[in-house]
Amino acid sequence: MKRIGILTSGGDAPGMNAAIRAVTRKAIFEGMEVYGINYGYAGLVAGDIRRLDISDVGDKIQRGGTFLYSARYPEFATEEGQLKGIEQLKKFGIEGLVVIGGDGSYHGALALTKHGFPAIGLPGTIDNDIPGTDFTIGFDTATNTVLEAVDRIRDTATSHVRTFIIEVMGRDAGDIALWAGVAGGADDIIIPEHNFDMKVVAGKIQEGRDRGKKHCLIILAEGVMGGNEFAEKLREYGNYHARVTVLGHVVRGGSPTARDRVLASKFGWRAVELLKEGKGGLCIGILDNKIVAADIVDTLENKKHRPDLELYRLNNEISL
Amino acid sequence: MKRIGILTSGGDAPGMNAAIRAVTRKAIFEGMEVYGINYGYAGLVAGDIRRLDISDVGDKIQRGGTFLYSARYPEFATEEGQLKGIEQLKKFGIEGLVVIGGDGSYHGALALTKHGFPAIGLPGTIDNDIPGTDFTIGFDTATNTVLEAVDRIRDTATSHVRTFIIEVMGRDAGDIALWAGVAGGADDIIIPEHNFDMKVVAGKIQEGRDRGKKHCLIILAEGVMGGNEFAEKLREYGNYHARVTVLGHVVRGGSPTARDRVLASKFGWRAVELLKEGKGGLCIGILDNKIVAADIVDTLENKKHRPDLELYRLNNEISL
Amino acid sequence: MKRIGILTSGGDAPGMNAAIRAVTRKAIFEGMEVYGINYGYAGLVAGDIRRLDISDVGDKIQRGGTFLYSARYPEFATEEGQLKGIEQLKKFGIEGLVVIGGDGSYHGALALTKHGFPAIGLPGTIDNDIPGTDFTIGFDTATNTVLEAVDRIRDTATSHVRTFIIEVMGRDAGDIALWAGVAGGADDIIIPEHNFDMKVVAGKIQEGRDRGKKHCLIILAEGVMGGNEFAEKLREYGNYHARVTVLGHVVRGGSPTARDRVLASKFGWRAVELLKEGKGGLCIGILDNKIVAADIVDTLENKKHRPDLELYRLNNEISL
Amino acid sequence: MKRIGILTSGGDAPGMNAAIRAVTRKAIFEGMEVYGINYGYAGLVAGDIRRLDISDVGDKIQRGGTFLYSARYPEFATEEGQLKGIEQLKKFGIEGLVVIGGDGSYHGALALTKHGFPAIGLPGTIDNDIPGTDFTIGFDTATNTVLEAVDRIRDTATSHVRTFIIEVMGRDAGDIALWAGVAGGADDIIIPEHNFDMKVVAGKIQEGRDRGKKHCLIILAEGVMGGNEFAEKLREYGNYHARVTVLGHVVRGGSPTARDRVLASKFGWRAVELLKEGKGGLCIGILDNKIVAADIVDTLENKKHRPDLELYRLNNEISL
Repeated sequence: MKRIGILTSGGDAPGMNAAIRAVTRKAIFEGMEVYGINYGYAGLVAGDIRRLDISDVGDKIQRGGTFLYSARYPEFATEEGQLKGIEQLKKFGIEGLVVIGGDGSYHGALALTKHGFPAIGLPGTIDNDIPGTDFTIGFDTATNTVLEAVDRIRDTATSHVRTFIIEVMGRDAGDIALWAGVAGGADDIIIPEHNFDMKVVAGKIQEGRDRGKKHCLIILAEGVMGGNEFAEKLREYGNYHARVTVLGHVVRGGSPTARDRVLASKFGWRAVELLKEGKGGLCIGILDNKIVAADIVDTLENKKHRPDLELYRLNNEISL
Repeated sequence: MKRIGILTSGGDAPGMNAAIRAVTRKAIFEGMEVYGINYGYAGLVAGDIRRLDISDVGDKIQRGGTFLYSARYPEFATEEGQLKGIEQLKKFGIEGLVVIGGDGSYHGALALTKHGFPAIGLPGTIDNDIPGTDFTIGFDTATNTVLEAVDRIRDTATSHVRTFIIEVMGRDAGDIALWAGVAGGADDIIIPEHNFDMKVVAGKIQEGRDRGKKHCLIILAEGVMGGNEFAEKLREYGNYHARVTVLGHVVRGGSPTARDRVLASKFGWRAVELLKEGKGGLCIGILDNKIVAADIVDTLENKKHRPDLELYRLNNEISL
Repeated sequence: MKRIGILTSGGDAPGMNAAIRAVTRKAIFEGMEVYGINYGYAGLVAGDIRRLDISDVGDKIQRGGTFLYSARYPEFATEEGQLKGIEQLKKFGIEGLVVIGGDGSYHGALALTKHGFPAIGLPGTIDNDIPGTDFTIGFDTATNTVLEAVDRIRDTATSHVRTFIIEVMGRDAGDIALWAGVAGGADDIIIPEHNFDMKVVAGKIQEGRDRGKKHCLIILAEGVMGGNEFAEKLREYGNYHARVTVLGHVVRGGSPTARDRVLASKFGWRAVELLKEGKGGLCIGILDNKIVAADIVDTLENKKHRPDLELYRLNNEISL
Repeated sequence: MKRIGILTSGGDAPGMNAAIRAVTRKAIFEGMEVYGINYGYAGLVAGDIRRLDISDVGDKIQRGGTFLYSARYPEFATEEGQLKGIEQLKKFGIEGLVVIGGDGSYHGALALTKHGFPAIGLPGTIDNDIPGTDFTIGFDTATNTVLEAVDRIRDTATSHVRTFIIEVMGRDAGDIALWAGVAGGADDIIIPEHNFDMKVVAGKIQEGRDRGKKHCLIILAEGVMGGNEFAEKLREYGNYHARVTVLGHVVRGGSPTARDRVLASKFGWRAVELLKEGKGGLCIGILDNKIVAADIVDTLENKKHRPDLELYRLNNEISL
C-alpha cells in the first residue's frame, strides 16, 4: 500500500489528534503517503481531502478535539453515499483508510470493508462503549475531567452538608460513571447496566447522615434517567433534598492524559502496520493490556462492550 | 480585644479557608484567642463554637470550601435571632466577630453592629457582587474554573464547527461572564448590566461563518436568562442552532488560585489589625489594588458593585 | 482474621490514601477491625499504632501523599527489628498486615512472612519498578505530572527554537521517561533499559533543524546520567546547546488520577479478600489488566519488572 | 497611523499570545494593518516580517509561549542594529511598533523612540520586575504554576515529615517567591529585597518541630543564592537536613490564567488606542488597578519596580 487516508468521525474525543499524528508519522516512516480527510464521512464524500506531512501533525499531540474536524453524516449509511466515498478515495489514489471514532464510525468502516475497500477502525469516544476493546481513546481524559468536577463539588457538598446528584455522560454505557464514581468516593453509582432500588439509595443517605457524614455524592449515568428526575424520585422516600449538576459537553474536550496519548499512539501505529501488510476490515483495540486487531464485521455483529462491574460491587462495599 | 470569633456564611467560595487561617494565625500572633463558629449564623445561634489553635488551620490554605461549614439561616434576619447570637458570643467571651461571606452575611454583620457588637465583614463569594471591593475571595478561582471549561468546549466547538452557549453563574452580576468571556475569546458576552440585541448576536455568528471561523462561543450570565431560552430565541433569527452548557455548582469548589489565597490572607490579616484596635462595624475590600476598610452600614446602604464594563467594550472590538 | 494492620513505607505515591481507604472500609465491611501504623516500619517497631474507623478515611481518596506518613527505617532489615515489629503487632492483636510501598517495603513484608506473620504487599511507588505488576499505585499520576511539565516546556522550547533535556525520576526504571516521552512527543527518550548512541541523538536534532522544526525535547531517565552531564556530552557532537530541566520531588505529590485511585481501591479491596481467607505472604498486582496475587517470596526472588519497550521502538518511528 | 508592527522579545511569558491577538484585532477594528515580526529584534533586523490577519490570531488566546517566537539579540544594543531595524520597518511601511517583553525589550523600544520611531512597550515577563506596572503579563500564571508545585511538595513533605527548600525564578525580583510563598503557606520566604538571618530560619524550623508540625517549606528566590547552597548553610545551625527542589524553566510555559489573558488583552487594546492617536515612546502598565501609559524614557531611567513587601511582614506573622 502506497497511500492511505485518515478521518475522524462522531463526537470528538481527547487523543484523536495523537492517533492522527501516529498514523501519519508511522506511515511516512514506512514510505507511504497520508491524506487527511476533513469532517469525517461528509468530507470523504465531498472530496475535502489533503496531503498530510510530518509537520502537519507537529505540535498536535497535546491538543484536545480533532484537527481533521468531525461531522454527523447519516447519508453514509446509504449505499449511494458509500460508493461516492470510495470513488473519492480512488480519485486520490488512496488504497486504505483509517477511521477514528465511535459506533457510527465503525459502521462506516464496516460498509467500506464490505465493498472491498480496506478500512481499519480505531476506537475513539469518551464513552468507552465500543466492542472489541477494554478502553477507547478519550475515556481516560473524560473520566479525569469528571473526577475533577466531583472533587470540586465535594468541597461545596461538605461545606454545606448536602447531597449532590452528578449526572454524567453515558447513554448506554456506565463506564464514566463507574470509574469516576469509584475514584471520586461516590456514595452511590447508578448505571444502565445494573438495577438500582431508590429505597436502598435513600437508606444509604440516611445511614451516612446518622453517622455524621458531611456530604453525599451520587454519580448518575444519563442513560438511566435525568438528574432532576432522579432527585424528584428520591424525595418521595423522605427528606432527601439533593442538588443536581449536569456535566455535559464540558467533559468532551481538553488536553489528553498520558494514557490516552499513549493508547492513541499505539493504536495508530498498529493500524499502519496492518495496512502496510495489506490488511483491512479490522478494528484495533486493547484487550488485557495488549493491542489487538479483530475482524470488524465479527466485532460489530457479535461482540458487546461490558463495563467492569466488579467496580460496582467494590464501590458498594467501600462507600460505607 | 482578647477573644474573637469567626464564621463563614452563604455559598462557599475558594479561599475562605485561607481567610480563616489568616485571621486565626494573626490573632494568635497578636495574643488573642480565636473561636470558630460552625455552620454560619445557624451555628452561632445554636452555640456550635470551638476554640481554634494554630494547628487547626494548618494544611487548610489549599483547600476549597470552608472547614467551618456554611448554612442558610433566614432566622438571623429577625431581631430575636440576632439577640440570641449575641448572647452566645457573650457566653463564650467573644468580643469581636469576623464574618466571611456574601451579601446576606454582610447584613448579619450589619445587624450585629447595629446592636453594638463589633463585627467585620470579609467579601467571600465567587460572584464578585459585593459593594466596597473590586474583588471578592473566590472570584479569581471560579473565573479560572469557568475558563478551563470554556477552553475545553472550544475544542469540541472547533472540531464540530458549532456554536455553543455557555451559561455561567451570576444572578445579578456579570463579572464571571465578563472575565471568563474576555479570557476565553468569547464571540459574545451577555450580562445583566448591559443590554443586548439578539439580531446583533445572530449577525456576528453569521459574519464569523462567512469568514470561515470554526467555532462560536457565547458566554451568558444566568441572570439574563437561561441558556436554553437564549438558544431558542437565537433560532428565531436564522439557522443558528446552538448547543447549551450550564456551568453550575461545578465551579464553586476547588483549590483556590494564588490570587485568591493572597487576597484572603490580606483581608484576614487586616480584619484582625482592626479588631485589635477595637474597631468594628466595618467591611474589608480591595479598591484600586489597596486593602481598605469602610463603614459597613454606609457600604451596604449607599454603595453598589459595578463590573468592569470596559471589558465589555473591549470584547466587542477584539472578538471580531 | 479479626484485626488487620496497614502501613505505608518508602517514598510517598499518589493513591496511597485511596488504598488505605479501600483496605479500611472493605475490612470493616467484612467485620474486621483495622489499625493504622504511622511512619511505616519505624512506627511499627515503635508501636505508633491506632485504630482506624470509617470516618478516619473519609475525605482522603483525593489527597496526595499518605496520611499514615512514611519513613526510611533500615533497621527493619535486621532480624531484631523484624521480631520487635511482630511483637508490637501481637501486642495490638493484629493478625495480618497490609504493606503499601516499593521494593524496600516488599522486603519488609517478605521478612514478616518468613517469620510466619501473614503480610500482603501492595505496589505503591511512582517509579513503576515493582516485580509482579504492570502498574504501580502512583505511576499514572506522576506520569501525567511530568507530562504537564513537558507540555509547558514545549511552549518555551518552541518560542525560543531550543533543545531541552528534561531529566525525570527513574534510577533503575525508564517507565516514567517512556510514557511521558511518548505522550509528550519527545524527539528522544533515554532510559536505563536500552542503549543509546549520542551521535544518533545529535543526528536527529540536526535533521529536525534542517526540516525547520521549532523545538527538540529529550526525556532522560536520571538512572542513565544527569541532565547536565548529558548536555555536555551532546555538545561534543556539534553546536547542540541544550537547556536542562530536572523534575525532582515536584512530581511525587498531587491529587491522584482516576486510574491511580481505581487501581489503589482494587488492590486494597483484594488484599482484604485474601486476608479474610487467612492468606498472607502475597503481593498484589495488575497483570494483563487483571488483579492478581502472587507469592511474595517467588516474586521478589525470581521476577523482574520490565518496561514496555515497544514504546521505545514506536517513539523512534513516530518522533521523526 | 495606518500600519503597525508587533514583536515579542526576551523570555516567553504566558499571555503574550493574548496580547498579540488583542493588538492585532483592535488595530484591524480601527482600520489599521498589522505586521508580525518573528524572533524579536533579530527578526526585525533580518526583515522576518509578515502581515497578520484576524484569523492568524484565532485559537491563540489560550496558548502559552509566543507564536511570533522570541530570541536574544544583543546586537540591537548598538546604533547600527537599531538603524537597520528602522530601515526594515520603513521598508514594510510600518509606522508604529508594539514591543512585548521584559527589561531588555523595553530598552530596544526606548532606543527606537530616541531615533524618532514611535514604539510602545508592554510588560511581558513572568518575573514581574518591570518598572511602571504593578503586574506583568505572565506573572499570575507563573505564580500559580509554582503554587501547584508547592502544593504537591507539601504532600511529600508532610508524608515524610521533612523540610523542603523550593528555589524559584527571580534573579532580582522576589515577587514570585513572595506570592507563591504566602499562597503556599510557606514557613519562610527568602527574597533579594529583604535581609534574612539563617539563625532565625533555623529557629523557626525548630519551633515548628517542637509543636509537632509535619512539614516545613521554605521558598527561596534564586537571586539570593542557590537552593543547595542555602541547604548547606542551614545545616550549620543544627540538624536541619532539607531537600532541595529547583523550579526552573518548567514554570515559564503553560496556558495563561484568566487574569493574565485579561491583562494582556487590556494592555494590547490600550497600546493600539495610543498608536491610533499617533502617540509613541510609552510603556503600558497597570497601577492601582488602572491601565496606564507612561513615558518610556522616564520610566526606564527613574522608576524601579518594588515588590509588595507587606506580604513579607504578613507571612512572618501568619506562618507560625
